[in-house]
Amino acid sequence: MKQQLELVSDNRCFDGQQKVYAHDSAVLNFRMKFAIYIPDNLEGPAPVLYHLSGMSCSEQTFIQKTGYQRWASHYGIIVVSPDVCPRVTYGVEKNEIEAKGLSFYVNAVKKPWNKNYQMYSYVNEELPSIIQENFNVNKDRQSIMGHSMGGHGALISALKNPGKYRSVSAFAPVCNPSKSSDIQFIFKCYFGDDEKAIEEWDATCLVTNYKGPELNILIHQGNDDQYKEQLKLQNFASACEKAGIAVSINVEDRFDHGFYFISSFIEQHFHHHSKFLCDS
Amino acid sequence: MKQQLELVSDNRCFDGQQKVYAHDSAVLNFRMKFAIYIPDNLEGPAPVLYHLSGMSCSEQTFIQKTGYQRWASHYGIIVVSPDVCPRVTYGVEKNEIEAKGLSFYVNAVKKPWNKNYQMYSYVNEELPSIIQENFNVNKDRQSIMGHSMGGHGALISALKNPGKYRSVSAFAPVCNPSKSSDIQFIFKCYFGDDEKAIEEWDATCLVTNYKGPELNILIHQGNDDQYKEQLKLQNFASACEKAGIAVSINVEDRFDHGFYFISSFIEQHFHHHSKFLCDS
Repeated sequence: MKQQLELVSDNRCFDGQQKVYAHDSAVLNFRMKFAIYIPDNLEGPAPVLYHLSGMSCSEQTFIQKTGYQRWASHYGIIVVSPDVCPRVTYGVEKNEIEAKGLSFYVNAVKKPWNKNYQMYSYVNEELPSIIQENFNVNKDRQSIMGHSMGGHGALISALKNPGKYRSVSAFAPVCNPSKSSDIQFIFKCYFGDDEKAIEEWDATCLVTNYKGPELNILIHQGNDDQYKEQLKLQNFASACEKAGIAVSINVEDRFDHGFYFISSFIEQHFHHHSKFLCDS
Repeated sequence: MKQQLELVSDNRCFDGQQKVYAHDSAVLNFRMKFAIYIPDNLEGPAPVLYHLSGMSCSEQTFIQKTGYQRWASHYGIIVVSPDVCPRVTYGVEKNEIEAKGLSFYVNAVKKPWNKNYQMYSYVNEELPSIIQENFNVNKDRQSIMGHSMGGHGALISALKNPGKYRSVSAFAPVCNPSKSSDIQFIFKCYFGDDEKAIEEWDATCLVTNYKGPELNILIHQGNDDQYKEQLKLQNFASACEKAGIAVSINVEDRFDHGFYFISSFIEQHFHHHSKFLCDS
């Protein structure tokens, strides 16, 4: 049965429509929003690129602050950008997870988080199904990208689903969360002290055992990124090298972690994905 | 004596720096913020483009939501975008002017507004002086643009200062405020019932008596603009035609009043200004 989608907004942007929908998510047990950009004049089922945002963002941030629609329209790619977490409140005190939307795109095991914080399944299963049912997309042509926490989400999604995404890219991704002191408290909320479980949601750990088709990874990070120490890009780069996995890593002089950085290099990311999504 | 500028933020964006400064404005009797984008590799004093934002905006909105830095960097133009009003509070009840920043870029005459709401003088005199003292700009190469209320501000600034700006452009400008029912209450706050005074701050009235060099006006408006009835673009177009003043007016199918509209056509506005600012 087709999911009921509620159109929240619909704005003309470049040569296409930037829309936002709300819907009841079965996986998350919560009402969610996602943004979708649909270029004009698509010929048949279109390639689709999923974008995952970082902490303190919503489905609005990427669509308002990066100007990506110029490139989505140029290459004829449908772009889907969901909210970063279910906006549920458990009444947990001093709850940074709820306040900043720190879903980390994993499936939580521990209470109370396990009831709604199943963003990995939402992003990789339920949301693509909804998109395929309601929009004219080619399910064999999908890629994924993200920023910061969402960059981590994109990398683990590609690594845990060999062949599902034709390419993956990230701006300043969290690369090795099991080794990042500021992030461990979140994983403890979701998984307790089970270190093995935590490694299953860590791109640097996952890449070591990756078996599957070429991943086609593109990463940009600013050299002045204020969270550089927590991102641990070098650990990921080393693990890729050891595993013989190609990755294009670009560290950009003077850029920081924010949206000015993303808007400056979004063209390169769309060009990257277009090579794998739009070939004939 | 050089004005003391406080650097509030400094972010790398495309090939340049997006900065925000705070300073004490003598004209406004208040501390103000403005944004300035400085492209790399400028050769000598650079052309400067002033951007005036619309209601409910601040110095942050244009710099975060339009991606204009790509084009400022491309053409080598310094761009200055001030906050839309002094953030003073008079304790006036149900004060839409303070809540939405409805300065309208005029010099208010009536109390209490006349003490701080002198945005016309700020934008056309004090701010350019500060920019010229503190940055390497060419004061003979300046232009002005704006959105909505800020489009009105840009048009009246160009019309009231023949020869000061080499070109002027506007997205969905308020063109004929003395004939817009929703806007008249604002002008009454600033000028009382003095209709003659109000006409001196109305682009459609001003254009009728304009004497001076070519204005080089570019205007874009969305055909689905939700405020179309209040903007009165047709009145301005007719007045220009009657006065023999050339204006390029572009009504864009399916676009509305918001920032997706601006980001879609910002390239054209920078191209327009570059023709008058960057020729040798």
